[in-house]
Amino acid sequence: MKPLIGVDYYPEHWDESLWEADAEMMKSIGVKVVRMAEFAWCKIQPYEHAFDLDWLDRAIEAFSKREIKIILCTPTNCPPLWVYEKYPETLQTQRDGQKIATGIRGHRCYSSKKYRELCTHVIRRMVERYKNNNAVIAWQIDNEVEANECCCEECTARFRAYLKKKYDTLDNINQAYGNIVWSGEYSSWNQIKPPLGDYNEGWYNPAYMLDWKRFCKQNAADFVRFQANLIKSIAPDTSVTTNTWFCGNAPDYYDMFSDLDFVSYDNYPVARIPKDENALYSHAFHLDLMRGMKDGKSFCIMEQLSGGTGCWTPMGRSPLTGMIQGYSMQAIAHGADMVLHFRWRSARKGAEMFWHGLLDHDGKPNSRLAEFEELCKEVSALSDDLEGTRIENQCAIVYSSDSLDALNLQPQSNGYHYFNQLKSFHDALTSLGVGCDFIDEKSDLSKYKLLIAPALFITNSDTAKRIHELAEKGGHVILTNRCGVKDEVNGCLDTPLPCDFADMTGCTVDEYDPLGYDIEKVAVPFCNGTFDANMWSESLTLNTASEIAHYEQGFLDKKAAATQNDFGKGKVYYIGFCSPQRAFYISLMRYVLTSAGISFVKGLPRGVEITQRKKDGLKLTFVFNNSEQKVKVATDKIKCELEPFEMKILKQRI
Amino acid sequence: MKPLIGVDYYPEHWDESLWEADAEMMKSIGVKVVRMAEFAWCKIQPYEHAFDLDWLDRAIEAFSKREIKIILCTPTNCPPLWVYEKYPETLQTQRDGQKIATGIRGHRCYSSKKYRELCTHVIRRMVERYKNNNAVIAWQIDNEVEANECCCEECTARFRAYLKKKYDTLDNINQAYGNIVWSGEYSSWNQIKPPLGDYNEGWYNPAYMLDWKRFCKQNAADFVRFQANLIKSIAPDTSVTTNTWFCGNAPDYYDMFSDLDFVSYDNYPVARIPKDENALYSHAFHLDLMRGMKDGKSFCIMEQLSGGTGCWTPMGRSPLTGMIQGYSMQAIAHGADMVLHFRWRSARKGAEMFWHGLLDHDGKPNSRLAEFEELCKEVSALSDDLEGTRIENQCAIVYSSDSLDALNLQPQSNGYHYFNQLKSFHDALTSLGVGCDFIDEKSDLSKYKLLIAPALFITNSDTAKRIHELAEKGGHVILTNRCGVKDEVNGCLDTPLPCDFADMTGCTVDEYDPLGYDIEKVAVPFCNGTFDANMWSESLTLNTASEIAHYEQGFLDKKAAATQNDFGKGKVYYIGFCSPQRAFYISLMRYVLTSAGISFVKGLPRGVEITQRKKDGLKLTFVFNNSEQKVKVATDKIKCELEPFEMKILKQRI
Amino acid sequence: MKPLIGVDYYPEHWDESLWEADAEMMKSIGVKVVRMAEFAWCKIQPYEHAFDLDWLDRAIEAFSKREIKIILCTPTNCPPLWVYEKYPETLQTQRDGQKIATGIRGHRCYSSKKYRELCTHVIRRMVERYKNNNAVIAWQIDNEVEANECCCEECTARFRAYLKKKYDTLDNINQAYGNIVWSGEYSSWNQIKPPLGDYNEGWYNPAYMLDWKRFCKQNAADFVRFQANLIKSIAPDTSVTTNTWFCGNAPDYYDMFSDLDFVSYDNYPVARIPKDENALYSHAFHLDLMRGMKDGKSFCIMEQLSGGTGCWTPMGRSPLTGMIQGYSMQAIAHGADMVLHFRWRSARKGAEMFWHGLLDHDGKPNSRLAEFEELCKEVSALSDDLEGTRIENQCAIVYSSDSLDALNLQPQSNGYHYFNQLKSFHDALTSLGVGCDFIDEKSDLSKYKLLIAPALFITNSDTAKRIHELAEKGGHVILTNRCGVKDEVNGCLDTPLPCDFADMTGCTVDEYDPLGYDIEKVAVPFCNGTFDANMWSESLTLNTASEIAHYEQGFLDKKAAATQNDFGKGKVYYIGFCSPQRAFYISLMRYVLTSAGISFVKGLPRGVEITQRKKDGLKLTFVFNNSEQKVKVATDKIKCELEPFEMKILKQRI
Repeated sequence: MKPLIGVDYYPEHWDESLWEADAEMMKSIGVKVVRMAEFAWCKIQPYEHAFDLDWLDRAIEAFSKREIKIILCTPTNCPPLWVYEKYPETLQTQRDGQKIATGIRGHRCYSSKKYRELCTHVIRRMVERYKNNNAVIAWQIDNEVEANECCCEECTARFRAYLKKKYDTLDNINQAYGNIVWSGEYSSWNQIKPPLGDYNEGWYNPAYMLDWKRFCKQNAADFVRFQANLIKSIAPDTSVTTNTWFCGNAPDYYDMFSDLDFVSYDNYPVARIPKDENALYSHAFHLDLMRGMKDGKSFCIMEQLSGGTGCWTPMGRSPLTGMIQGYSMQAIAHGADMVLHFRWRSARKGAEMFWHGLLDHDGKPNSRLAEFEELCKEVSALSDDLEGTRIENQCAIVYSSDSLDALNLQPQSNGYHYFNQLKSFHDALTSLGVGCDFIDEKSDLSKYKLLIAPALFITNSDTAKRIHELAEKGGHVILTNRCGVKDEVNGCLDTPLPCDFADMTGCTVDEYDPLGYDIEKVAVPFCNGTFDANMWSESLTLNTASEIAHYEQGFLDKKAAATQNDFGKGKVYYIGFCSPQRAFYISLMRYVLTSAGISFVKGLPRGVEITQRKKDGLKLTFVFNNSEQKVKVATDKIKCELEPFEMKILKQRI
Repeated sequence: MKPLIGVDYYPEHWDESLWEADAEMMKSIGVKVVRMAEFAWCKIQPYEHAFDLDWLDRAIEAFSKREIKIILCTPTNCPPLWVYEKYPETLQTQRDGQKIATGIRGHRCYSSKKYRELCTHVIRRMVERYKNNNAVIAWQIDNEVEANECCCEECTARFRAYLKKKYDTLDNINQAYGNIVWSGEYSSWNQIKPPLGDYNEGWYNPAYMLDWKRFCKQNAADFVRFQANLIKSIAPDTSVTTNTWFCGNAPDYYDMFSDLDFVSYDNYPVARIPKDENALYSHAFHLDLMRGMKDGKSFCIMEQLSGGTGCWTPMGRSPLTGMIQGYSMQAIAHGADMVLHFRWRSARKGAEMFWHGLLDHDGKPNSRLAEFEELCKEVSALSDDLEGTRIENQCAIVYSSDSLDALNLQPQSNGYHYFNQLKSFHDALTSLGVGCDFIDEKSDLSKYKLLIAPALFITNSDTAKRIHELAEKGGHVILTNRCGVKDEVNGCLDTPLPCDFADMTGCTVDEYDPLGYDIEKVAVPFCNGTFDANMWSESLTLNTASEIAHYEQGFLDKKAAATQNDFGKGKVYYIGFCSPQRAFYISLMRYVLTSAGISFVKGLPRGVEITQRKKDGLKLTFVFNNSEQKVKVATDKIKCELEPFEMKILKQRI
Repeated sequence: MKPLIGVDYYPEHWDESLWEADAEMMKSIGVKVVRMAEFAWCKIQPYEHAFDLDWLDRAIEAFSKREIKIILCTPTNCPPLWVYEKYPETLQTQRDGQKIATGIRGHRCYSSKKYRELCTHVIRRMVERYKNNNAVIAWQIDNEVEANECCCEECTARFRAYLKKKYDTLDNINQAYGNIVWSGEYSSWNQIKPPLGDYNEGWYNPAYMLDWKRFCKQNAADFVRFQANLIKSIAPDTSVTTNTWFCGNAPDYYDMFSDLDFVSYDNYPVARIPKDENALYSHAFHLDLMRGMKDGKSFCIMEQLSGGTGCWTPMGRSPLTGMIQGYSMQAIAHGADMVLHFRWRSARKGAEMFWHGLLDHDGKPNSRLAEFEELCKEVSALSDDLEGTRIENQCAIVYSSDSLDALNLQPQSNGYHYFNQLKSFHDALTSLGVGCDFIDEKSDLSKYKLLIAPALFITNSDTAKRIHELAEKGGHVILTNRCGVKDEVNGCLDTPLPCDFADMTGCTVDEYDPLGYDIEKVAVPFCNGTFDANMWSESLTLNTASEIAHYEQGFLDKKAAATQNDFGKGKVYYIGFCSPQRAFYISLMRYVLTSAGISFVKGLPRGVEITQRKKDGLKLTFVFNNSEQKVKVATDKIKCELEPFEMKILKQRI
């Protein structure tokens, strides 16, 4: 994908007379790509049998004639109101059994056959119209597809079919779920329903709930696949994506993007550096996570922060000087190619009017636009160098969609969140200047020197086998508490923890204590340090492993808290506790990286990120100051000063 | 209106044998007026075709024969249960589409034709019965009418009719609302619905939501008007009011009272002086606001604090010694004529039993009754002097019902509330002994020397024009951040902020930053001060204006934060930030008042309020100590000592 | 009841092959009793006309042949899904009028005739099958029966019948409730409904709400009685119980257990000593309260803490070393005979999998099991001594189910909770080594030297009379603020507070001030102390009483705050305030106990509890260290050192 800077544009929101002026202004400051038609269904199909794409022809023309490329969207997130009025089966059904009220957005049910039929009509018209338009370089499917938990009859039927395919018989389901507990065995398929009622999710059978979550994710991915197939059936050579973010009911990103051409992420970093030290590298974390969704192959920002945000919640702080340009460059440094800013003009109407675009409501050039122009120039100048570069890392962290859901369904300890388990390790690596990938369980593990699988709660034999192989062949592996607890149907395994990994770790868990926000002390001799533990602590029985940390207090005093073990040609670390202190993870990573022979950077200032993109003959090193202070970088290889949010790029022929 | 002290009395709650004794006791301590029949519908009409007013005749007689006047209520807030049982269409419909459950109060739908028919029957009977009874001096309509958001079919039809009248066509609505955003254009009138579902209101189209709020307010006012017209059609010379308070879904007070004879307010100040400095003059604020609802013409307290409050919430602190008398006198000092205490006896039954009256449950004389007796005497002695006096002020603050709603729908910043914007200025004026009126946008502005319009978010050309005229003719005007942001349909204007006021202010907004609870620093040279800004900050480009304050820190460092500008013969101030510090607003007001030639009082102790009521030949100055401490007042003109909650009244022939 | 240690076991959760191994392991460590079949309905009756108890025969046999006794449960908490599918009338109806969603547990409606018919079938089969099996020593009815507030038609009809029986006519109800308030008089029986809608309960008529709560409690007790009668009709000599806990919508424990053979309590003390000083003796409080439910006659723990808890909420801390054994012994020290640990194995499936049993998921012996084995041995050795012993106390605290509900419905002050009023006195007595009983209002009072009735909000003439008699005959009585406020229909009495007790206390309440979390000061001369008051303060007019404490500050400065009064041959204390300080209650109790001639222990270390069980010829004194520290006890009679959670038992022939 060619590195391009662009904007999101809604021609239907503005008087046609503005289109030419906007396009001209964009051209003059260097915009290369525009996304359009995202929510325009009611303008494209105002009545059931009336289609109008002429206005879109003219809008596209306004940009394409100025050599600005177009990404078109299927406008399916918001069917026109006549759809819901005439075909109420296209609406989602809530947990109380009622149809969702319309008037906002995203009310559609992915399972509804009538809705899919209506989608087919509008998408077919659009793709056929523009399949030969060279300006149209890609299609975005819908908008921010979430794993909606619709309880309608069509979804219920699909859920039953999903279970039928997976388990074949009710007996098998009853066995797998342990439905005998609380006398909940199914005796007819009709008894299988979505989780109705407003219960705390933790009250339901966790095996059933995990399957329900998986079904909803699969149903969302299936909806995306349905659209992708339709588009490709008409325009086989076009690129297709969908834009996503880290939402509450997240789709299975790896599955959803598997048949798409590239990952698109809506990137809205908070506009003030968080005071919480542990959130220092959150932006980088999210970007790295998103890049991993398609193995780092192709990644773009479809919506990028352009001004103050807020609408349905009070507005937050406005971006600081440097953030408009800097955060786009940060995305590129973490692997993005295209970056489209959301949005060109701030909306004057509708619920999103205070989710600011580059231009304020008065449409006058302002300081944010000036920064954006700088960005356009910078990326344009870098474009040839950037094109074709890839990020390659020696470390990877495993992201498990099942473990995320299962840990949400059954929180292990007050404040214990799956994402934070991943973030602790990512933060330590980032602050040591070491890049890392996020991979899912099915990814190729063999290319990494170091694999970290925090809280890999749900496991299966295949994943366990491949992690074993990595270590056997000489890889280093870090496992933590709450690894290997559950089988694939979310039941507890019946061997000593960490169960299928106990041979690798060379230790088993003796007792555990869910600390929540309480603190215990852990001594870590390899760095002469003592650290706090919170959230979780467990004592370890050493089999072949040796202790690398032990408790110094409380219930588990003197007992082993973390271990290392030689396994095959590799080494396996097991961390039986969590720490609220970054310093622990940084010390641990220094120790493990040294042992694994992976080099890291010493003395990076707080907030500075170093990443690299490479291709044959060229290495680009990105040095980014994600802080509100001016900093001086003086490592072995890099010496420079950076303004707040400034990016320096070092170019090296290799 | 003659100054009278009274009580609210519910004869239907007590054995008839108590009526005479109560009336006699009231007479002996000086009660002059009693309100009755507020919730008595089921006693008046126990079955559909059975009316009984004989008991009410006897109750009225018990008081009238002792020369105590009567205010009667239409009992429409609570229809008897047989109404809801037989005519469920009289019940409100909730956002989930279900009829509201009965068993509390206020369940009736204002739009229901059947309900209005039943109201007509009962009101007609009552008014005809008492229209010639001289003891009955006024009618109260219903109780605490709120702008209920009923979603029934009759309300929906009325809402559609309201929009039809306002916009004529769906196209016009779609244009006005920008319904194209999120593909929400109406293609049939049936698609227009109340905001169903339990969404955060900020997710709906804000133009639609503001119209919905306006409709609900108008519908409430229409219901009041319907009753007023009915009463006046039978008893043309009687006085009509309705009692109101500052509730969550506030009616449009100005509209609601426009056809009524006087404003009635239910006044329940908290029984402890708030620890928050900024809440010091909250009582005075609410009283001044209510007095303004009918241009200060006629104002009474229909329910006045009489004891500890609490019922559906835990009881709060009991009133301190002096509050029973003092807070009634405070109401009079701020313009009230009649004050009725709620209630004579504390209820022994029903949900309100711990909302204490003057008498406790044992009905024995107590210290609160003793204070109340003092009050009766004090007002009786003052009565001739008070009668006919009016409050006249040189300063006014604009209260905009639309801006209140629009800012609630789209909160601009964490903690930014419209009322607080008004209160900051009112507090400063009050602590300088300067009285001020609250007026709505349609009021006559020309009589004021100083007009303050904080956060006048929604504007229209007429209001803007009249504010311009005031300044042109020599008035002083203070405008603030978030003035002039929106047009009448709640869309953002497309000229530089403050848009229609930019010529008056002589400055435009360059950038804004919604601070929420974060703090920035602002230097204010005219008082050699530096103050905190929070909630909002914006930098100003000076056109004809001159700077009077600038930021000293952060994102907007050195930029102008507040300005003054000569405009016509007047002066216009623009304040681009909010401050959590009273001292800022007090300094600002000293500066502006001096410039506007309005005198103010120096050295008033904390919590002391000075107000004046005048008529030909007489000026009464009220000095009230709204604090828990004894204070000494020593200004140019006033020297006195005041006990906690004591009122001193200075009488001056003029 | 013979002292036995046991476990809860779910054979249906485990492969049959494990049963024998489990039973053998239990036998070897000393388990004497096992509870089974609690949620097994769908295994017993998988289809409407198919019953299977053969598996249960085999499960029982596995234990009985090893001389382990069995408690069987009626599995009625969870009917099989086919019941709900075929007979939806068996499901509860929610306040929104909708049937409750299935999939969790406890969805059944106690009133449903069809449900009771189905219960009858399954219970009859079970009891007939096992009535002659000597291993089966008792039956547990259902599980944790709560006073569900079901709004279905059958419940509504029963509620109307309940009111009909109590009040006979609608007029009587209208009078009793004061329905005239807010015009809510019933004119037809159909208008009487459950409290539908999601209102704050405080908005409803409190008389109606208290009757509704009473009805729901009676309905729950009636359901238990229905099962008990059924079981006894088949197996007249068996023992019957139901297990209960302190749940949100608590049943009326005294009523529910009145026809059962013994009280069963599910005892899950928190696994860390609370930091709040006032919660120090919470465990003891709950145990004493439960023991009182059947006059201390027969009491067992049906589910006892066995490991870390948590499921639908995050897991809490794991039990500390000593808690498994210590908290079982503590239950015995407070009167329990049998103690069954919940559960043998931690569940591998279902929502409760992290509510840990004695064995972890891996089923391996662990440190908790080792402690449990110690417990089995300890109790086995004590068994002969323990059998037949009873706890006898000289002090009692009154627990009033009506006052609990009425104070919940109308909270008197921020943070004022009925249980805390009881707990303050219990805590003081416990820390002085003085045992106390909890009794309900109908209990025999005459055997106590000291009766404490904190916040006895709802009273009736019978209770008042018997409290009077106790004092007249020489008993000491402590009454507090909010005693005697309400009559039996939850209306306020109309005599000076404390109304029916005013003659006993010799004082009346002058004024009250609900302090909430605000603090006032109270001087208490008898201990030269000054203490904080919060939640409530009232000033007292002394009639025959003398002052023992007075306010030193605020609104009520110098006024009497607490009194004592000679009444008959006894003494009555009245405490007009609450205190957040344990020290106040301890000082007060020392003063009162001394006066009442009840001996107490001086110098008990923090957290240590002393209790006694006696029978002819033998006194067992239990000394328990409920703290995380080692302590040294050195009182007049007891000298010992205790490890954390250690129990020492002193045996004395008498």
